[in-house]
Amino acid sequence: MTTQQLVEQIHKKQSFLCIGLDVDLNKIPKHLLEEEDPIFAFNKAIIDATHHLCVAYKPNTAFYEAYGIKGWEALEKTINYLNEEHPEIYTIADAKRGDIGNTSTMYAKAFFEDLGFDSVTIAPYMGKDSVEPFLAFKDKHTILLALTSNRGAFDFQTKHVDGVELYKQVLETSKSWENSENLMYVVGATKAEYLADIRKIIPKAFLLVPGVGAQGGNLQEVCKYGITDTVGLLINSSRGIIYASQDVNFASAAAQKAEELQKQMQAELTR
Amino acid sequence: MTTQQLVEQIHKKQSFLCIGLDVDLNKIPKHLLEEEDPIFAFNKAIIDATHHLCVAYKPNTAFYEAYGIKGWEALEKTINYLNEEHPEIYTIADAKRGDIGNTSTMYAKAFFEDLGFDSVTIAPYMGKDSVEPFLAFKDKHTILLALTSNRGAFDFQTKHVDGVELYKQVLETSKSWENSENLMYVVGATKAEYLADIRKIIPKAFLLVPGVGAQGGNLQEVCKYGITDTVGLLINSSRGIIYASQDVNFASAAAQKAEELQKQMQAELTR
Repeated sequence: MTTQQLVEQIHKKQSFLCIGLDVDLNKIPKHLLEEEDPIFAFNKAIIDATHHLCVAYKPNTAFYEAYGIKGWEALEKTINYLNEEHPEIYTIADAKRGDIGNTSTMYAKAFFEDLGFDSVTIAPYMGKDSVEPFLAFKDKHTILLALTSNRGAFDFQTKHVDGVELYKQVLETSKSWENSENLMYVVGATKAEYLADIRKIIPKAFLLVPGVGAQGGNLQEVCKYGITDTVGLLINSSRGIIYASQDVNFASAAAQKAEELQKQMQAELTR
Repeated sequence: MTTQQLVEQIHKKQSFLCIGLDVDLNKIPKHLLEEEDPIFAFNKAIIDATHHLCVAYKPNTAFYEAYGIKGWEALEKTINYLNEEHPEIYTIADAKRGDIGNTSTMYAKAFFEDLGFDSVTIAPYMGKDSVEPFLAFKDKHTILLALTSNRGAFDFQTKHVDGVELYKQVLETSKSWENSENLMYVVGATKAEYLADIRKIIPKAFLLVPGVGAQGGNLQEVCKYGITDTVGLLINSSRGIIYASQDVNFASAAAQKAEELQKQMQAELTR
């Protein structure tokens, strides 16, 4: 999907919500455990109930790998279901990969071609030749970790590198990489006050913003400092939506939580 | 496996060789493509021919994920084969993962418990709370990327952070994390001259050293600056060994290359 198509979807749905499909079998409604594939059954119900309220879904691959081959099968079924039933939905493999050149190419093929995701999250630590193999794919996005929502972000990301914080150095340096127009960046909602500075370095790039809700980030704060004339934001909520209820009505409870966020986003878009 | 057991194996085999199982279906002997599981058939032949010459195997997960569920099955079969037939072998999942707390725990369970690897490689960018969930596993090692063998290492890793290179900051900071005795570090063989400085910060920790052979790193240089009184080195070679030949005799050709390295290591151990 192109960036322009994503922006069109945001205006059409009046939403820049991304729903994180981080499925933990200990947290899903008990009755689903009797299904042949509980993870996919859960995802399908969530998608069916919420797809009109969001523009993107983001499975974190850790939650699928944790269940071995069954988990991997559930991930494949989920992305296939999205691509077949809802091709207008933007898909993010939250994989946080990063490796040297030829290995990065293997990962890029796995996520972009075989699984058919629109984008994948990547760690920047190994530099240019670990990221460019992903950027080479047309109409696919590489979402680089810049400033993450966790406390450990202060261990290295905010440290000064040659006088500038490391995450700013990552933003600045990555602009010079080949096909850098295919870059998006992860910036945690818990770091909203940093967004003004970030927008000075990357005024237009899309940001994937986790941390609204369960982790304490604030939607209005993120928009105040981060929104652009082409929106430029995908705000993710995972647990706050998908685990809104553990009853048989879990999907409609999730839809209700998603709609609350969508309404707030609509207000921001019409501001 | 404990560090002490690993050191015992190194002395017993007179080898600190790790063989990278980075299986690319375009590079393995053509006759194997007729097998039901060509990836596992290749790995099994390589393991059968080389296990007495090395102390560790390191599958890079990218190469398995690139083949979807079939790849994941081949990875499971490979680690099961190693754990059942050669429990004295140390195993490394070269996954370069890194995510926030609860997600890191999912990854740690996947690699340490479900798959049964002895260790996993981890990226440090997200800091302490992304790594400590891995360190919590007893008799398992977390191998942190410090200074990688690729050119992109110079983009961020060697930049000065508050006056000290980022990779040194990673080494220094990580020593304060809980269960830091379970840490090892990745240092590329192409950066051998940095090892003297690295040993000042982490005098005893084991280093996983890729980049000997195909990437141009030199075994003697690595040993000169990196070896400790308990060896402290695992030197990895992937392509140089496993793709030594594409004939039906590929496994014995691989064994020959592995033996060349083992002999060099024996010389270093008896120096």
